[in-house]
Amino acid sequence: MQLRVPGPTPCPPQALQAMGRQMVNHRGREFAGILNSVTTKLKQVFQTEGDVFILTSSGTGGLEAAVVNTLSPNDKVLAVSCGAFGERFGNIAEQYGARVKRLNFEWGKAVDPEAVNKALRADSDIKAVLVTHNETSTGITNSISEISSVVKGLGKLLIVDAISSLACIDLPVDKCHCDVVVTGSQKGWMVPPGVAMVSMSEEAWQAHAQAKMPRYYWDFTKAREYLLKGQTPWTPAVSICYALNSTLDLILSEGLVNVFARHARIAQMTREGIKSLGLTLFSEASHASNTVTAVSAFARKGEGDALKGYFAGEPQIDVPKLIQVLRDEYDMVVAPGQRKLSGKIFRIGHLGLVEESDIKMLLEALTGALPKARL
Amino acid sequence: MQLRVPGPTPCPPQALQAMGRQMVNHRGREFAGILNSVTTKLKQVFQTEGDVFILTSSGTGGLEAAVVNTLSPNDKVLAVSCGAFGERFGNIAEQYGARVKRLNFEWGKAVDPEAVNKALRADSDIKAVLVTHNETSTGITNSISEISSVVKGLGKLLIVDAISSLACIDLPVDKCHCDVVVTGSQKGWMVPPGVAMVSMSEEAWQAHAQAKMPRYYWDFTKAREYLLKGQTPWTPAVSICYALNSTLDLILSEGLVNVFARHARIAQMTREGIKSLGLTLFSEASHASNTVTAVSAFARKGEGDALKGYFAGEPQIDVPKLIQVLRDEYDMVVAPGQRKLSGKIFRIGHLGLVEESDIKMLLEALTGALPKARL
Repeated sequence: MQLRVPGPTPCPPQALQAMGRQMVNHRGREFAGILNSVTTKLKQVFQTEGDVFILTSSGTGGLEAAVVNTLSPNDKVLAVSCGAFGERFGNIAEQYGARVKRLNFEWGKAVDPEAVNKALRADSDIKAVLVTHNETSTGITNSISEISSVVKGLGKLLIVDAISSLACIDLPVDKCHCDVVVTGSQKGWMVPPGVAMVSMSEEAWQAHAQAKMPRYYWDFTKAREYLLKGQTPWTPAVSICYALNSTLDLILSEGLVNVFARHARIAQMTREGIKSLGLTLFSEASHASNTVTAVSAFARKGEGDALKGYFAGEPQIDVPKLIQVLRDEYDMVVAPGQRKLSGKIFRIGHLGLVEESDIKMLLEALTGALPKARL
Repeated sequence: MQLRVPGPTPCPPQALQAMGRQMVNHRGREFAGILNSVTTKLKQVFQTEGDVFILTSSGTGGLEAAVVNTLSPNDKVLAVSCGAFGERFGNIAEQYGARVKRLNFEWGKAVDPEAVNKALRADSDIKAVLVTHNETSTGITNSISEISSVVKGLGKLLIVDAISSLACIDLPVDKCHCDVVVTGSQKGWMVPPGVAMVSMSEEAWQAHAQAKMPRYYWDFTKAREYLLKGQTPWTPAVSICYALNSTLDLILSEGLVNVFARHARIAQMTREGIKSLGLTLFSEASHASNTVTAVSAFARKGEGDALKGYFAGEPQIDVPKLIQVLRDEYDMVVAPGQRKLSGKIFRIGHLGLVEESDIKMLLEALTGALPKARL
């Protein structure tokens, strides 16, 4: 089966072999060696000298950890969103009692840094900005460097969901002055789901010292204390650490620049292939994601057209039918649209373990499947 | 290497093979089949008709989920503790703003149900009781059926940490009227760490409907809603679900009664072996755990003596040295004492994948190692 959803991504044989390794004592020196090795290599991919913690959870747990470790109830937070995952980030902060101001962009469009600037200048009480680097639900990659210029220029905390981008799309965490960055194992890291990874800047630690949201499992004070002895506070997902240790070697030996270039090249190939099939790309072309491509079930005049009124008219593809045909007849799994994009788009994941031949195969499958799913 | 710590336990080949399986779409029908199968079998081992949820986290995350899903800030809670994990449970509730009343028993002794009765009768405001079934730090198993008679007789919510007991020691969740029961994958379930499992009774759901502690990642309303379609709200630890599906078959085909009997038999063999080496068991004999045996570094007159004054005098074993010799010369890993028991006991895990020959080998290793670690 060809898994072409935006996570979990297929795992290379090295990762699967590592997953099958027998357990060791998570409080012993062997595991300490593995944890230290993984952490050191993670910092290289995060491009940070700050701390990086490995949490036993999905990416959403990592987002929750980012929030509760840096904020207090009643803190005012700007939740910048252009899709389902941006909304989720704001919802988490709201659940923990933050006063969340929403800055929402149309789904399929990118975050406008100037609008972030205006929103922050309009309310000096805002303490932190939550933003999604790569919005998996719409196939949009936001410009964190531009957003960071605004946010850090105004002295706010910058908390970034990079779950589906880190290790695939260049995000130099320190250079972009990101305070907290969250990612998840089943994306560009090429290992199974079960681990989130979160970086913390010096400024994030200062916020942490004041942060009053309740936390126990997610507490980074404990994570930092245990990491000094090569441990995690709670029993870690040992197998996923084994696997990460091996895929991080793959990533670093390919070289970060090459990994980013491969994702860019393959994304470009995907987009061109989609267009040559007569289909329309859903997302704003200038910010099309290199890890997930959203394909419209509708026709529109030309690439880059305003999305306003986009869903007027009738869809041309029966998305559930297309997904079913791809799966049943071509052994190929793509993802549907989420929430308000359900039935309106489908999504192709091309992150982590992916090369040109995978996309070639997918495009061939689509060529065969599309006629059966035309409305 | 022989891993004889109280978790992670060694995994059988079936589990390790399953861990190495390639990813599937966690929102597709194949994974739905696996999740439904695992959930159905988990309910058999929990001996419950209630709900059981699979969380991507360590056991501690499961304890946090139990607390935040059933309680509100300012709720008065009785935290009954006889060791490090009992204290942890109370600490979690405290972090989330519960008013925690502590009922602490000496480490090495079991919880006295009559004392629980008195504490509850002395303060009718108490809403819930947190209690540890098997206290891993001291090798004690508390009588949940007796504690439940008291707690449920007074109409309180009963929240049980059974992380290191379930699937090893009989705990019929429904028959014992436990409202919430938490366990972790790396214990009796014989799979790697990374998943917690939590059951919810009808009464627990009623409490949930009123519970105001902040929760997002742990929210059981979402877990229940997604389970209806064979999914989890957030990307699950797919590999561990594969593995659980296979070890649950092992557990159910051995038969619960036989699994419990094997743990009892092997624990008995361990305790007798320890005594025949001239060593002293740390824990109250009447409540000695069938999953972990705590061995004293001190001598005492006779088994069952009051523990008071127990640590007077000098230890006879250098615990760190013993652990090191066992590891370096015998390839055998046992666990040290935690917190105030550091240097005073060592602990042998015999849960999950364990048979007589493992304990025989351990006792032989101890026979060789002890002379080198005598003080």
